Amino acid sequence: VIDPPPATLVVVDRPMRGMPADGPDDVGYRLVDPDHATIHVTDLGVTRGDGVFEGLGIADLDVFRAACLASAAAHEPAPFLLQKLVVTRGLEGGDGTPTAWVRTALMDDPAIERRDGISVVSLDRGYRHDVARTSPWLLQGAKTLSYAVNKSVLREAARRGADDVLFVSSDGYALEGPSASLLARFGDRYATPRLDQGILAGTTQAAAFDALEQQGVSVEYALLTLERVREADALWLVSSGRQIAPVTTLDGVAVPVDAAETERLGEALVGRRR
Amino acid sequence: VIDPPPATLVVVDRPMRGMPADGPDDVGYRLVDPDHATIHVTDLGVTRGDGVFEGLGIADLDVFRAACLASAAAHEPAPFLLQKLVVTRGLEGGDGTPTAWVRTALMDDPAIERRDGISVVSLDRGYRHDVARTSPWLLQGAKTLSYAVNKSVLREAARRGADDVLFVSSDGYALEGPSASLLARFGDRYATPRLDQGILAGTTQAAAFDALEQQGVSVEYALLTLERVREADALWLVSSGRQIAPVTTLDGVAVPVDAAETERLGEALVGRRR
Repeated sequence: VIDPPPATLVVVDRPMRGMPADGPDDVGYRLVDPDHATIHVTDLGVTRGDGVFEGLGIADLDVFRAACLASAAAHEPAPFLLQKLVVTRGLEGGDGTPTAWVRTALMDDPAIERRDGISVVSLDRGYRHDVARTSPWLLQGAKTLSYAVNKSVLREAARRGADDVLFVSSDGYALEGPSASLLARFGDRYATPRLDQGILAGTTQAAAFDALEQQGVSVEYALLTLERVREADALWLVSSGRQIAPVTTLDGVAVPVDAAETERLGEALVGRRR
Repeated sequence: VIDPPPATLVVVDRPMRGMPADGPDDVGYRLVDPDHATIHVTDLGVTRGDGVFEGLGIADLDVFRAACLASAAAHEPAPFLLQKLVVTRGLEGGDGTPTAWVRTALMDDPAIERRDGISVVSLDRGYRHDVARTSPWLLQGAKTLSYAVNKSVLREAARRGADDVLFVSSDGYALEGPSASLLARFGDRYATPRLDQGILAGTTQAAAFDALEQQGVSVEYALLTLERVREADALWLVSSGRQIAPVTTLDGVAVPVDAAETERLGEALVGRRR
């Protein structure tokens, strides 16, 4: 058995619909050596963090789908893979052609965080909960490459001895983690912060709601103050990377952990096709 | 006479103090071809916008100074050059060695914007004016590579038919432009927004204050509401790129332009050594 590579990289040469192929063998993407794959220093993704991941808008989805499958195939057999799709606005002063790639990497078994849980601290996100509506130019809710704040808050969490962060709006509403959605259980109801608060619509959170609804459980998108979140009977952070991790403490205060429900939800999420 | 290159790039291989030289010829930096200079796709400057420009902290300033001089020398003779120093946190999963480079490019004669002026619209920055003090993890006031918002607001300005933007805090205070400081004249006094509001300490703004004080003019750092800014007798955006540009309209309303004072300040700024 040959060990699968730890990470693969596919550069997407034709990220937009309608770009002409460079001969009959040009499938629009190339599997490249991830240790030596490079991007121009003057790419706007580098100099301005001006790009997005996952949210592909005008992209040629057929080419991206093929690129993702080719990248994943290079890893078989691998139990857990994480893929990240990136599109930048291309070169500074260039013709606007995006730079794009797909990175696939082996992922830790999500069962570990699912079992051990994570400690979380709440940190002010600085924006009001309605900022995406009042000031769309602030790009809240977009997965841009401008992630310095998301990295910075993890350093602040580590400084406080915690694993992860729950962002809170400047007017007191729980929002999301820097790379995860919040899921809360109140009695027999599940809730997640309403998506019009400048947060990301998490695919894993949506899948968790689907699984819960199939079990006949009530779910809702809600405005949740931090105080309300502290009253929850159980809390989780969910994301495509970690799937589902129970929150064991919030700001140093123990949160009840429902191991059986975490396991049920985790199994439903790992087995899904979205 | 050979035309100077439009841009040069110097990669800084030893950006931090104490990094060992790779032989006696290793000066710590290399002049590279800017059209083919690349950075790893997995560099945190690319994937997370996790890096800074200009604010060099732990950097080996001797190496950066030499790199800047070498890069500028490649352009001689050139009347106006703009240099940008960038340091990222290096490769994802790497050993923490920063990636660093200096880009030097020919700049337009700043006299053009100084003469023609710019139209500006005010846009909500989303944060309270005191956010840098209450929530330092939001990195307000740092020149990070996470500039997607600064690029996004210029697109919103263009949509409104304007050249540039004045950020306003969520509680109504004028802050700065996406790449410039605000300078306002009220009668015989000059004011700029106080620097504890999560904004950048502009070197050009500081130089303008120095020049004004040498002329015996009163200057102050102040909390300026947008309403107060609208009452100014003259407004400018100042930055190392454009030096000084008079604001001709703010949100579509004409602003008085003091051409003689703009010229005086512009001459003082172009001739300075900081």
